[in-house]
Amino acid sequence: MRFLLLLCLLGASLHAAPNIVIIYADDLGYGDLGCYGHPTIRTPHLDRMAAEGVRFTQFYSAAEVCTPSRAALMTGRYPIRNGMCHDQVRVLRRFSSGGLPHDEITLAELLKGKGYTTGLVGKWHLGVWSNDPKHHPQNHGFDFHFGLPHSNDMDPNAGNPKLANALADQKAEYWNAPLYRGLELVERPADQTTLTRRYTEEAMKFITVNKAKPFFLYFPHTFPHTPLFASPAFKDKSRRGLYGDVVEELDWSVGRVLDTLRESGLAENTLVVFSSDNGPWTLMGETGGSAGLLREGKGSTWEGGMRVPGIAWWPGKVKPAVCREVACTMDLFTTAAKLAGAEVPSDRAIDGVDIAPLFFGEGKVEREVFCYYRGQQLYAARVGPWKAHFITRSSYGPDKPVAHEVPELYNVEEDPSEVRNLADQHPDILASIRRAVEKHGATIKDVPNQLEGVVEAAK
Amino acid sequence: MRFLLLLCLLGASLHAAPNIVIIYADDLGYGDLGCYGHPTIRTPHLDRMAAEGVRFTQFYSAAEVCTPSRAALMTGRYPIRNGMCHDQVRVLRRFSSGGLPHDEITLAELLKGKGYTTGLVGKWHLGVWSNDPKHHPQNHGFDFHFGLPHSNDMDPNAGNPKLANALADQKAEYWNAPLYRGLELVERPADQTTLTRRYTEEAMKFITVNKAKPFFLYFPHTFPHTPLFASPAFKDKSRRGLYGDVVEELDWSVGRVLDTLRESGLAENTLVVFSSDNGPWTLMGETGGSAGLLREGKGSTWEGGMRVPGIAWWPGKVKPAVCREVACTMDLFTTAAKLAGAEVPSDRAIDGVDIAPLFFGEGKVEREVFCYYRGQQLYAARVGPWKAHFITRSSYGPDKPVAHEVPELYNVEEDPSEVRNLADQHPDILASIRRAVEKHGATIKDVPNQLEGVVEAAK
Repeated sequence: MRFLLLLCLLGASLHAAPNIVIIYADDLGYGDLGCYGHPTIRTPHLDRMAAEGVRFTQFYSAAEVCTPSRAALMTGRYPIRNGMCHDQVRVLRRFSSGGLPHDEITLAELLKGKGYTTGLVGKWHLGVWSNDPKHHPQNHGFDFHFGLPHSNDMDPNAGNPKLANALADQKAEYWNAPLYRGLELVERPADQTTLTRRYTEEAMKFITVNKAKPFFLYFPHTFPHTPLFASPAFKDKSRRGLYGDVVEELDWSVGRVLDTLRESGLAENTLVVFSSDNGPWTLMGETGGSAGLLREGKGSTWEGGMRVPGIAWWPGKVKPAVCREVACTMDLFTTAAKLAGAEVPSDRAIDGVDIAPLFFGEGKVEREVFCYYRGQQLYAARVGPWKAHFITRSSYGPDKPVAHEVPELYNVEEDPSEVRNLADQHPDILASIRRAVEKHGATIKDVPNQLEGVVEAAK
Repeated sequence: MRFLLLLCLLGASLHAAPNIVIIYADDLGYGDLGCYGHPTIRTPHLDRMAAEGVRFTQFYSAAEVCTPSRAALMTGRYPIRNGMCHDQVRVLRRFSSGGLPHDEITLAELLKGKGYTTGLVGKWHLGVWSNDPKHHPQNHGFDFHFGLPHSNDMDPNAGNPKLANALADQKAEYWNAPLYRGLELVERPADQTTLTRRYTEEAMKFITVNKAKPFFLYFPHTFPHTPLFASPAFKDKSRRGLYGDVVEELDWSVGRVLDTLRESGLAENTLVVFSSDNGPWTLMGETGGSAGLLREGKGSTWEGGMRVPGIAWWPGKVKPAVCREVACTMDLFTTAAKLAGAEVPSDRAIDGVDIAPLFFGEGKVEREVFCYYRGQQLYAARVGPWKAHFITRSSYGPDKPVAHEVPELYNVEEDPSEVRNLADQHPDILASIRRAVEKHGATIKDVPNQLEGVVEAAK
């Protein structure tokens, strides 16, 4: 009896502090996985993860490009709140001096405060530490780090032709990406063909080494952002070309992580979430992905730019289902904090809500509005199934924004491809979205922008 | 021992003649089911069928509109071979005098010849028997019949406004569709709100009554062709509006059929295939479906017009998998014939190939070319992953065809959305597709057209 009680207490204590793993793909589109309908890319491990877990069909990143999306994931806040978005600059560059402000509380810091060991394997993109060491993830709550400071195309070698992202030009020698372990540069240029494999090995090792106590593993992959590189074991194996090879290797990686959790006996005590930082970079042609039936891609506030795959897995806890409720990456901050028993910061606006009820099949969650920012401007907002576009613009590219005096209005549950503007028929709904946006806007304060500054070397 | 032998023989004999069930949706798009990536339409029964069976990601109807598609399914032959397609008329109309020629051998006739009981529940559209009784399915091999002669929008009442297919105008009183049991008219206008439910009850009854010997059930639904009607139990229940309600009721119907097979102990001896006659009628706005990531819809030879959901289920025999090989509805003719031990007709060209190896996970199948006809003209052809468009035209509508001196060429496995024309880079591939098309063309003979004739009443 005493033994049983001990087991129960142990069980409760284990469940009170589950391990948290977030796997984040880069530029993977809503339509790029088998379980989201891609016809030729094979993703058996993610499909299995989805079948065993919750697959979200209306899951959003909190921004349309990389840096702001990651800032939101790490802080549970729209990037407009911490200066991590910019209309023109868009993302941090190689010579950017700024980064995630230190008065922000990252998910790593929050979980570390509850005794978690924290690890980052992969791409950071919230500050370039060779420009300023304070931007290193170790100064934002991560105990362990292995990976690239920014996107894999941000350090071109001399002689790299314009448009070197195009498939014909995806040559290793064009790129000079630096690979770090902590603050130590371990390889430059990083051999990008083995990056997914090596990231995966590091992630598996982090899990194995830290299995005795709670851990948080943040695993943002470098791919399928262009330039694309796959290991020899995956190169030329997919029917979808190099892009498919790369996604199939990411799928293998997810399988290895889940297998490691299963083999270590940790699966029943680990929440794993898979998602992507924004929609597919459709401008890249065959080296960019697919948003499936959604309109536009990366860089746009049409659904294809921000609605992404979202899969949650926790055997025995997460109830296998397809979830059609709205959820977003900022929610992971709040949800993980609560699962870990941490206090969600109360001295600032937190935009994520606790979506554990969606994971566990215990009902809906309240969400007043979901905002679609492009850079510093609010382009669109969603309340229930209704989305109003105040400004529209197509994918990442040189075209101009169009501001709408009467916003365009779509029911994105009836019309996920956003082809039928119903603004004329529903002025009442437009008015209610405007009110929600005004209420949201009143919570936004002026903060220093982090993306526009550059270091001396770039001046 | 003798008992075991008897069991084995019984088993072998059962497997030598499985029941065949083909469920055929009308105008359901490639992207309209949960397991094909639709975000809001709930299709748990089809998703389960897919998980337990083979889900094809490159499954084609043999035509871009209704009548020719069904003619091909029933005969295993491109409709150009039996006069069941026409550039202008497109499909059989209410006053059409023609129908499927009687020198054609239908799948029902073939299976009936092997001792099968054959039943048709649903929409025929291969000849209007009130114009000429010889067109009745009972004269094409079906023992049992319950359903409509043609599409549900083909018998408008006086006062039916133009565009009555639009959602706001989907009123029961606009339509006068006749519902038959055999040659007996049982209801006119058919109460379309209960049609899916009543079809389903008839299909279940057919299975139950005929469970003692092999049967073939052909179950072509009336929906989601517009005008849309759902039972009260499904009306206003879907997030996708009325279209979603209707598809969710079809999904319920599939679940009832599979449950009936399970409960009757027939599941392990029944091949069930689910598909659609062509792509979504996108011109119908919210009452039309979605082709997902594919280009265009019904009426077009872009992928969205002819690539459709395709799911095969046979517990214990069909190996659960996602199949990325090309397959088409004409293959069902050949495959079902062989499974039933029937001779595939050798006195005529049969375009379907035996895809049992794809069902059973036993390898690939040989297919020289897949042809995309629009009416009587070959618009495009696919060899391996490559598709050449000789003529292009958007969905069912008034636009004009464009003939290409240099055909457009797409790798539809790398580029399923057909956005990157690679004709310039691959003249050799174009040449080989031309050769395959010429070889196919040499097998096409002049036959009387069945679609252009009308009865006296219409003159």
